[in-house]
Amino acid sequence: MNIRPATESDRDSIWRILEPTIRAGETYPIPRDMPRDAALAYWFSAHHEVFAAERDGEVLGTYYMRPNQPAGGAHVANCGYMTALHATGRGIARAMCLDSLVRARARGFRAMQFNFVIATNHRAMALWQSCGFEILCRLPGAFQHPTEGYVDALVMFQTL
Amino acid sequence: MNIRPATESDRDSIWRILEPTIRAGETYPIPRDMPRDAALAYWFSAHHEVFAAERDGEVLGTYYMRPNQPAGGAHVANCGYMTALHATGRGIARAMCLDSLVRARARGFRAMQFNFVIATNHRAMALWQSCGFEILCRLPGAFQHPTEGYVDALVMFQTL
Repeated sequence: MNIRPATESDRDSIWRILEPTIRAGETYPIPRDMPRDAALAYWFSAHHEVFAAERDGEVLGTYYMRPNQPAGGAHVANCGYMTALHATGRGIARAMCLDSLVRARARGFRAMQFNFVIATNHRAMALWQSCGFEILCRLPGAFQHPTEGYVDALVMFQTL
Repeated sequence: MNIRPATESDRDSIWRILEPTIRAGETYPIPRDMPRDAALAYWFSAHHEVFAAERDGEVLGTYYMRPNQPAGGAHVANCGYMTALHATGRGIARAMCLDSLVRARARGFRAMQFNFVIATNHRAMALWQSCGFEILCRLPGAFQHPTEGYVDALVMFQTL
């Protein structure tokens, strides 16, 4: 697994990862019908540093890192991770999360916060906890899941 | 107290309210040196609905309301409030908060969340609690206060 900064030439690969996750609408508060250009503009937004996780030359995952708040809150990092649907369960998200923690420390971030982990996303919750995150609180009914209705979202946090 | 949608003609009044709070840097994660145009662009950003609280024709407070998250999280409102420095302690923030709760319910929001209430801002914490918000969690050391160093920020929440 090689995790490296993403470049313009990764846009097709990254869109192939983002599209099914966005269309499913179960794990991120992103409009399910968001078109490719808007999705890539969001993923590559100005304050995001974007990475690609590849194995044997194939991009199987991507994540962004950004300050969770500007100014007085800019010492806390935030990340979003997506793994290719056909590659789930192979440790790619874990590798990206651990990589992001290393990079966040190297950049001087003092903590990492996830603002909106969907409570039905059990795999992600368990994975982030195994990577050192703790659940600070549940946001009651804060996410409208396409099939489960209103479900909680979690704030997760780790001091670096 | 008359609380109404803000218009272009309120920009001078609103900047007089924003400027000292931004320059102090004690209550919002906004760059302390943010210039007027950037601050007004932020306050009036595309997804913000902005209000002005006036008494005897003078704008003494302003707040914005927005969905706290897009898409599946858009049923939870978020607001930011600022009161003119010379008018604090006169119930203006309370009036704006109560007004925002009424408007949020009318717009169909199901809850209101504050993501980043600075723990040293005791007046705000007590006020929001008296308006029905509860503290869901503390974000440890998440805000760098200009004189107090790293202090906690609070996630506060109210179901509507």
